[in-house]
Amino acid sequence: MSDQPKTAITPPTHTVPPARFSHGVRKGNILQVAGQVGFLPAVEGVPPTPAGPTLREQARQTLANVHSVLTAGGATWEDVVMIRVYLTDTAHFAELNEIYNAYFADLQEPPAARTTVYVGLPAGLLIEIDALAVLG
Amino acid sequence: MSDQPKTAITPPTHTVPPARFSHGVRKGNILQVAGQVGFLPAVEGVPPTPAGPTLREQARQTLANVHSVLTAGGATWEDVVMIRVYLTDTAHFAELNEIYNAYFADLQEPPAARTTVYVGLPAGLLIEIDALAVLG
Amino acid sequence: MSDQPKTAITPPTHTVPPARFSHGVRKGNILQVAGQVGFLPAVEGVPPTPAGPTLREQARQTLANVHSVLTAGGATWEDVVMIRVYLTDTAHFAELNEIYNAYFADLQEPPAARTTVYVGLPAGLLIEIDALAVLG
Repeated sequence: MSDQPKTAITPPTHTVPPARFSHGVRKGNILQVAGQVGFLPAVEGVPPTPAGPTLREQARQTLANVHSVLTAGGATWEDVVMIRVYLTDTAHFAELNEIYNAYFADLQEPPAARTTVYVGLPAGLLIEIDALAVLG
Repeated sequence: MSDQPKTAITPPTHTVPPARFSHGVRKGNILQVAGQVGFLPAVEGVPPTPAGPTLREQARQTLANVHSVLTAGGATWEDVVMIRVYLTDTAHFAELNEIYNAYFADLQEPPAARTTVYVGLPAGLLIEIDALAVLG
Repeated sequence: MSDQPKTAITPPTHTVPPARFSHGVRKGNILQVAGQVGFLPAVEGVPPTPAGPTLREQARQTLANVHSVLTAGGATWEDVVMIRVYLTDTAHFAELNEIYNAYFADLQEPPAARTTVYVGLPAGLLIEIDALAVLG
């Protein structure tokens, strides 16, 4: 049986995960990005701090954090087939779409599929995003 | 490096997505269907309108919309390995299962795995469903 | 066209699913585990009963149930690339991580990516988990 290696992805902007999970995992042609929130790039000795306080700042930082994992795993947004967006407030949907469209304005390939639902998140967090990429 | 094309799937029943995402994406043997809600087939010049007002009507339309994406992407329900169901009310679980079982009564292959959770959705929407298919 | 078989996975500890879904599905090198909750191993004639009442008991039973599906499908935790954790209470995050870290202390490969969000679940359930594995 030919075992494909399973690789953890930890971008330089990220802290070591707070539990036994990886910020991203690649196995074969599948790259899964863990749920990212809008934490600013990690600074040693400082607890994780979200960008903010607006949705715009958090959403852009969250997308940047997903992108850091993709990049560290050898992928680009072009490889992403699914993006899951978790918001905390249905009133944020229109603004999220505006931010999202601006962020992806230059995408060369068809955009990923997306599911957006409204959940609870830890205090101070307005958005969480994960992504599934298929490479090659 | 052999690049597999990444294809956006837009069924004829669907509007252009309201943001930079695709209703479905196919890359290699993976087909990801974006979160579908119970919107009736698109009519030019008319804003998206959910089937309704009951869960039954919305759930059946939502399943039909997932199916439209699968069909437009060259897949069938037989290819689907995972279905994610987002409901807004735990009281809908039993009725959802009844609708679901009737809808899938004639499935020829083992049914997909499923996760059902209860989230917030935009006003008027009772259910959202996405799906992952593996072809070939 | 070479059709890969699609196989339903039903561990001996599980009841027949309450609707037309499978506890797990394998197709090709993809194994998808359906959302598992903390039900104790099935006893004929007895309705599903969650472990409990604490998060610790439910979370460990839920992880055991995911593991049962993986095992019945020929996979191990080492093959899992993504774990989705649905909690009902943000106050459970720290305790969940403690339980999670202890459970995965002996993992030989990099841990799976993870997304944790807070949703509604049927009464009595505190946690639901699903998982995606890539084999081979």
